[in-house]
Amino acid sequence: MQSPIMAQQREDSTSSEMRHDWLADRWVIMAPQRSARPNDYVIGPTRELDNANCPFCVGHEDCTPAAVATYKHACHHGSSQANHQASCLDLWSVRVVPNKFPAVNSNRKSLVESASFPVPVETAESHASAIDLFQRRDLTGGHEVIIESPQHLHSISQLNRESARLVFTAYRDRLRHWLDARGLAYGVVFKNVGLDAGASLVHTHSQLIATDILPADIARATERMELFENKESACLFCRMAEDELDHMVRIVEQTPNFIAFCPFASRFPSMVTILPTNHQPRFQTLSESELEQLSWLTHRMVRRIEHCYPDAAYNFIIHTAPNRLHRPDSFHWRIELFPRITKVAGFEWGSDCYINPLAPETAAAALRAAGV
Amino acid sequence: MQSPIMAQQREDSTSSEMRHDWLADRWVIMAPQRSARPNDYVIGPTRELDNANCPFCVGHEDCTPAAVATYKHACHHGSSQANHQASCLDLWSVRVVPNKFPAVNSNRKSLVESASFPVPVETAESHASAIDLFQRRDLTGGHEVIIESPQHLHSISQLNRESARLVFTAYRDRLRHWLDARGLAYGVVFKNVGLDAGASLVHTHSQLIATDILPADIARATERMELFENKESACLFCRMAEDELDHMVRIVEQTPNFIAFCPFASRFPSMVTILPTNHQPRFQTLSESELEQLSWLTHRMVRRIEHCYPDAAYNFIIHTAPNRLHRPDSFHWRIELFPRITKVAGFEWGSDCYINPLAPETAAAALRAAGV
Repeated sequence: MQSPIMAQQREDSTSSEMRHDWLADRWVIMAPQRSARPNDYVIGPTRELDNANCPFCVGHEDCTPAAVATYKHACHHGSSQANHQASCLDLWSVRVVPNKFPAVNSNRKSLVESASFPVPVETAESHASAIDLFQRRDLTGGHEVIIESPQHLHSISQLNRESARLVFTAYRDRLRHWLDARGLAYGVVFKNVGLDAGASLVHTHSQLIATDILPADIARATERMELFENKESACLFCRMAEDELDHMVRIVEQTPNFIAFCPFASRFPSMVTILPTNHQPRFQTLSESELEQLSWLTHRMVRRIEHCYPDAAYNFIIHTAPNRLHRPDSFHWRIELFPRITKVAGFEWGSDCYINPLAPETAAAALRAAGV
Repeated sequence: MQSPIMAQQREDSTSSEMRHDWLADRWVIMAPQRSARPNDYVIGPTRELDNANCPFCVGHEDCTPAAVATYKHACHHGSSQANHQASCLDLWSVRVVPNKFPAVNSNRKSLVESASFPVPVETAESHASAIDLFQRRDLTGGHEVIIESPQHLHSISQLNRESARLVFTAYRDRLRHWLDARGLAYGVVFKNVGLDAGASLVHTHSQLIATDILPADIARATERMELFENKESACLFCRMAEDELDHMVRIVEQTPNFIAFCPFASRFPSMVTILPTNHQPRFQTLSESELEQLSWLTHRMVRRIEHCYPDAAYNFIIHTAPNRLHRPDSFHWRIELFPRITKVAGFEWGSDCYINPLAPETAAAALRAAGV
């Protein structure tokens, strides 16, 4: 809460306004004056355990399930680590393994066979009810970990350009596997860095979850994209990219094929959206050159965030078109990236209405100014 | 993540299932096997600043805006604090003040007058578009702090029975003020305790936010309650209470007028819902005796949570019927209470699909077993 970026907006910030997030159809409260609140808490340093037993480090491959894919480049220079020579001998630069503690089941298994819940299957039959308040279903799909370096690095920003490209290549390939080859309903790549972002391991990694069901929120978002297209004969995010480039107040960077900007109705401070400026429904169709451009743009955006908020936890999420959509071409893929510098509190959990103490325009200016 | 309650379910927990939250129309992933994940982080102790300057302590009343309401009982015994004699002289036991850093504006003020956002009002007129992606609105309403004790206590569980009752009386009165007298669209009482729950001050307090707009998520929830009533000729939460009392696997406590239980599709571990068993749309209509029963039940539930998770941050939220509903009587008020023991990560932010590593049945058993 006590960041220099937020402090700089306090002087002229005296009131709130609401901004509409058209995609989520949700109003966000922008309340810059909230950043001047006093604070009783001094956060103790989060210590990291000795990494001698890190299951993601090179040499510990037997601590994880066997790899489903590995990526290697000619000579791996690490990230200015001392053991440069040693790393050139590594067998992999990026390694994809099934999650040892998956959130989804890889085999279809009926609830009757599963012994994980010590309760009988409940029904509402006593009411002869049409609605079952105790509905359950099995969940099948995939849950994978993309280990981004053989070395014990802690952020994607420590990778070199070639390694970053390989990580994004792995994202593309694994989304192709689960969405295109296996045909699952939904697939998402996400990254949790730091305790506050939900990470449990320090070693730089991302995850992919693919499910046989489309989450309700994603279904709603795709419906909103279709609605926009119906009404405007244009894609929502193509329009947004165009408008942001017109206004130039929230753009952080532009490359030949992408823009990175702080969205107008950001629900978190310093949230960044990365979009292809040309319409692309699926991340998986990225060309090699786009992939290289995107991976390095994302790398730079993480560095900008880390410059503004040293040691901040962060998440990113790759939204690509799910399967089984009525009109899959209405979807525009994108990356959402955000540092975790405020806590979500009771009001937000109760109303799904977010209070953001940092104007996206101020956030974008600070991210632009950050040297990378 | 490393709690004894979660550990005890690991043995027989090998797979995930999804459970449908009918109200939110959202599937939650129950993944008890996730609680066995290794963890690299050792959380440093969060230190609290010296409380000599706490703006909520007795004697510091001039650090906050003037009180809009105060409550006092005949002889205030504090909570077994040494300064019992002194506290009997206090002028108040509970004090309600406007939030000094409000998320909402108390006076209607046009955006043009407000100098808080250093950007011109943007329009999408260049597209002659029907949809404005940069829609803003002013936000008026109230944001109040309910200071629950003149002493520097940190949890509602440290109040005595009479003080707890006065706190809940303040909740009722202030909701009456904003929703019934002032007629605002939406009002919510919530409590953030601890850094991870979004608190910035330690001194035990709650907040009330009232807005002139109904948050989208609340509008959706009220529509779901109306839909249930249309289909079943019954109230969703009356039915749920009945079913939970039938099944008896997730009930933690029952009193003459209320039940406290861990909801079937809890999105967080050890989440508790407190419901009146008789249909009541509005919290504000609670009688004195119900208020006393409820405040002490909530107090006990917080103590049970603190017994299971010592020092855990927690939130609670009072959902009462908003105004301007098509059918306000379909609403059933309730309290949601949950410790903040897991972090919300990229997957959840990306999909609004929650992964809960603790079965509500296990959570309820542990909460029941906790001595209070």
